[in-house]
Amino acid sequence: MHLTRLQEVLQRRKLDAAVFLQSSHDDPNIRYLIGIDTEFCALVIPARGAAHVFTAGFEVPRARKVFRSAHATTQASLSKDLQPYIGKRTAVCFDTLTVSSHAFLKKHFKTTLTDISSELRSLRMIKTNEEIRVIRAACRITDELFTLLLRAWKTFRTEVDAALFLESEMRRRGCEPSFPTIIASGKNSGIPHHHPTTQRLRKGFCVIDFGVRYKGYCSDMTRTIYLGTPSKAEAHMYEHVAMIQKEIIHSLRPGKPARQYYERAHGALGKAFTHGLGHGIGVQVHEAPNINGTSKDVFQEKMVFTIEPGVYTPQYGIRIEDDILLMAKAEELTRSSKRLIRL
Amino acid sequence: MHLTRLQEVLQRRKLDAAVFLQSSHDDPNIRYLIGIDTEFCALVIPARGAAHVFTAGFEVPRARKVFRSAHATTQASLSKDLQPYIGKRTAVCFDTLTVSSHAFLKKHFKTTLTDISSELRSLRMIKTNEEIRVIRAACRITDELFTLLLRAWKTFRTEVDAALFLESEMRRRGCEPSFPTIIASGKNSGIPHHHPTTQRLRKGFCVIDFGVRYKGYCSDMTRTIYLGTPSKAEAHMYEHVAMIQKEIIHSLRPGKPARQYYERAHGALGKAFTHGLGHGIGVQVHEAPNINGTSKDVFQEKMVFTIEPGVYTPQYGIRIEDDILLMAKAEELTRSSKRLIRL
Repeated sequence: MHLTRLQEVLQRRKLDAAVFLQSSHDDPNIRYLIGIDTEFCALVIPARGAAHVFTAGFEVPRARKVFRSAHATTQASLSKDLQPYIGKRTAVCFDTLTVSSHAFLKKHFKTTLTDISSELRSLRMIKTNEEIRVIRAACRITDELFTLLLRAWKTFRTEVDAALFLESEMRRRGCEPSFPTIIASGKNSGIPHHHPTTQRLRKGFCVIDFGVRYKGYCSDMTRTIYLGTPSKAEAHMYEHVAMIQKEIIHSLRPGKPARQYYERAHGALGKAFTHGLGHGIGVQVHEAPNINGTSKDVFQEKMVFTIEPGVYTPQYGIRIEDDILLMAKAEELTRSSKRLIRL
Repeated sequence: MHLTRLQEVLQRRKLDAAVFLQSSHDDPNIRYLIGIDTEFCALVIPARGAAHVFTAGFEVPRARKVFRSAHATTQASLSKDLQPYIGKRTAVCFDTLTVSSHAFLKKHFKTTLTDISSELRSLRMIKTNEEIRVIRAACRITDELFTLLLRAWKTFRTEVDAALFLESEMRRRGCEPSFPTIIASGKNSGIPHHHPTTQRLRKGFCVIDFGVRYKGYCSDMTRTIYLGTPSKAEAHMYEHVAMIQKEIIHSLRPGKPARQYYERAHGALGKAFTHGLGHGIGVQVHEAPNINGTSKDVFQEKMVFTIEPGVYTPQYGIRIEDDILLMAKAEELTRSSKRLIRL
């Protein structure tokens, strides 16, 4: 399906084939296009006909499970193996290709290399029905895990305990974390990308930010709970963030610039709102569109992205994040309660 | 320390500064040089004087914890922020720099970009005493976890149970997995990069391949145990692999080509040995030197790498892997027993 969409791009731009090379980096485009993630890998997609994967010999059986045309190669013989597939005009992705891999292609092939980064970004930004179905399932699992987490909360002594609980339950459901789980209690909640510690959970706001990767696709949800009893000012600030998130989600429409929504959130929350308002999710947990102050993306139907306003002070932090499917209006794919939960 | 070594390279090659840009990819060199891993990041190291990190505003406090000179920037203003640090000749790493980031530098700066990939590879390949100390500690934790795993084995029903046990115990010790833990029982042991399943553990060989990341540095160890009672042929094959691993480790010497050792293992194990003999470990779980059939690396003192011969058939697999510090001779940093354990 994704291969067909890419082949349409190649045909339209009169390119003979697209080549993706994985070196020390994973190229997320390879995972997007064929659903595997092997250590050393080249992927060739001709404008018409079957695509081919080249990988280390011992990875071929695993690659064949998900992609029928997988062949063994080594870095040393890759140039020979690719030769039959390379024509006059070859598509590559400058956003992921390294300068060394670019030099490798220039050295071994007489071909013009054309960048299709922006076409790939556009393809990946608009989800297919199948992708939406899988992300929807990932979000359902995420909600289920959050319910279990709250139920088990009294058994946790530290942030790490809570993070481990979530990650264990993910694995039991055939998922893995889409990023390192954040459990940030007390003052730690003021650090947006806090790493869980083995210190005792502290009173105050506790930011819980986690997601699963299910069948290759990511979810990403944040809830902020309160351990103990919040002051009036704290409860008020929580309601303020929750209200802004709700208003923004309700006002999302295709055709509008993403930046507008960031500016509205920033206008309402001020300097204490220190990060972007959201980001696309898909095979990567952060992908297009960007929803921040420098974004040039315009919302379109079938985009899936997060909306996550937050405020951070030296004393505490609050963030509320949901995964949104945009059609004529926004649908919240993550549905855990957003009332301030006190534990 | 690492910065000083890189600055010596810059001075020797008469380069004004080195620049590392992190885009959608992590650049492991940034983690190597300054010990942090932020989402969006540029690192500038002048040939003399203090280095500077530029990252998203909300990441600055976290970055300052490990690196004193961290400044806020955005992708849009990065070119202005970098301007004061860029001279006539700038070092970059073509092995990790993307073509798009290369174009960004060419567009905004009048500077010659010089590739220092091979110098960086050489620096990272030879460990400092401090790096050796940290990897040694990572290996000690790895041995401890393996002991705990065996003790708890009877409580596991599935491969995922065993993997989760290891990963939970890692997190309790302030570590994370250096790669997704492999627990491969029965026929699954024949797949070198098997992903644990939630099927019941099967009789036969069970490959346990895991490692921790501790203070930024990786360990990577494999043991193969037997669930049930091995046939004579199976026990014999295990002893064969173990003996070859032992002989190779004892014969490791600085000054010898890595490829020679791969060839010796391949000669002894034949076609059933389907992967490389080993790889360097450091901030990445796979880094230089390569120990395979196309390697041009020569062993040197203070290299730290794995030695991991294996055999794979459709019925089973066996792999034994240790982390080695090479000095005048090889020292095994992972020390778990290599007798065939039956559970």
